[in-house]
Amino acid sequence: MSRLDAQLAFLGEADRLKSVLRATSLHDRSRRENSAEHSWHVMLHALVLAEHAARPVDVSRVMTMLLLHDLVEIDAGDAPIHGGHDPAEQEAKEQAAADRLFGLLPVDQRDAMRFIWEEFEAAETDDAIFAKSIDRVQPVLSNLATDGGTWPEYNVTPEQLETRVGVKVARGAPAVWSGLRSRIDAWFSGRASLLHY
Amino acid sequence: MSRLDAQLAFLGEADRLKSVLRATSLHDRSRRENSAEHSWHVMLHALVLAEHAARPVDVSRVMTMLLLHDLVEIDAGDAPIHGGHDPAEQEAKEQAAADRLFGLLPVDQRDAMRFIWEEFEAAETDDAIFAKSIDRVQPVLSNLATDGGTWPEYNVTPEQLETRVGVKVARGAPAVWSGLRSRIDAWFSGRASLLHY
Repeated sequence: MSRLDAQLAFLGEADRLKSVLRATSLHDRSRRENSAEHSWHVMLHALVLAEHAARPVDVSRVMTMLLLHDLVEIDAGDAPIHGGHDPAEQEAKEQAAADRLFGLLPVDQRDAMRFIWEEFEAAETDDAIFAKSIDRVQPVLSNLATDGGTWPEYNVTPEQLETRVGVKVARGAPAVWSGLRSRIDAWFSGRASLLHY
Repeated sequence: MSRLDAQLAFLGEADRLKSVLRATSLHDRSRRENSAEHSWHVMLHALVLAEHAARPVDVSRVMTMLLLHDLVEIDAGDAPIHGGHDPAEQEAKEQAAADRLFGLLPVDQRDAMRFIWEEFEAAETDDAIFAKSIDRVQPVLSNLATDGGTWPEYNVTPEQLETRVGVKVARGAPAVWSGLRSRIDAWFSGRASLLHY
C-alpha cells in the first residue's frame, strides 16, 4: 500500500465523524449538531477569539488540535459534559480509538497526529489550554442561542456551569468567560422570573 | 458594541453554514453533506496531503483559507461544479455575502479574513492553488465511495472530470490527481462493462 493509499483510507474513515451526534442543537434548532461541523465551528472560534487567550498561543497549532480533537469519537462516541459519563472508561475507549484511527496513517503522520492529540488531551501547554477553553465556549453559545438548549434537559444550574465549564474556559480565555458569564446570568435570571409567575 | 460582542455575532451567524447542503453525500449515503462539515473534512485533507503539494506551502495558511472558503455560501448558496451555474452571477452573490459576513467582525479582523478569502478565490499563490486543489479532491473521494455519487445524476464523463476537476487538482497536487485518476478510470470501466450486458 502506498503512502497515498494509507492517507486516503484515513480520510475516508474520518468521514464518519459527520454522523456522531452531540447534545447541542444548531442555533436554528432544526437538528442536533454533529462532531465534524462542531470541529469546524470551534476552529473558527479559535481563529477569531485568539486575542483573548490567557497567554500567547500559536493559532495554527491550536487549530490543528481542534481539527483532530474529536476524531476518536468515531469509535468512542461523544460524552456530553452534563451527561455523567465515567471519565476513566471514556478515556480508555478514546485511547483505543486513537490507536486504530491514527494507525491508518503512514507511521510518521500517525505519530505526529497522535502527539498533538495527546497534547490537547493533557491540557498542560498554553496552546492546549486555550484549545480546551474554546472547545467549551462554542456549546455555551449554542445553548444561549437556543433558549438554554440542553441546560433545562440536564437540570444544569449556574453553579454547575461555573464548575464544569467556567473554570476551564476562564483558564484559557478569561475575558471570553467573563462575557459569557454575564449572558448566562441574564438567561438564568429571565428563567427564574418566568418560573415565579 | 465591544470587540467580543462583534466576534460572537459573527461566530453565531457562521452557524448557518451547517444548513447549506452540497451535492455530495456522506460516504455511508445516509444524507447529503453540508458545507461546514465539508470545510472540516477538506482541512483534514490539506493537513494529511500537504506533502503532495506541487510547490512548498504554508499548511496553516492553507487551513485558514479552507476554514473560511465556504462562509459566503450562507448567503450565496453552494454552486455544484457540475450544476451549470452562471459564474459571474455566483461571484457577485459571493462578493456581497463576503461584505455582509466579514463585515460583522471588528474592522481589523474583517480585513484580514477578507484578504485571505480573496487570495483563495484568486487561486494565484502557491497556498491558494493547493487549497483549491484539495477542495476539489474531497468530493471526488466522496463520489468514489458512493458508487459514482453525483456523476450519474449529472451525466458526468471522465473527460468532463478531467477538464472541470483534474486540471485544477493536478495544478496544486499532481500526485494526488494521478492516484485519483486511476480510481476514476477503474470506476468508469466497471460501469461501462455493466452497461454492456
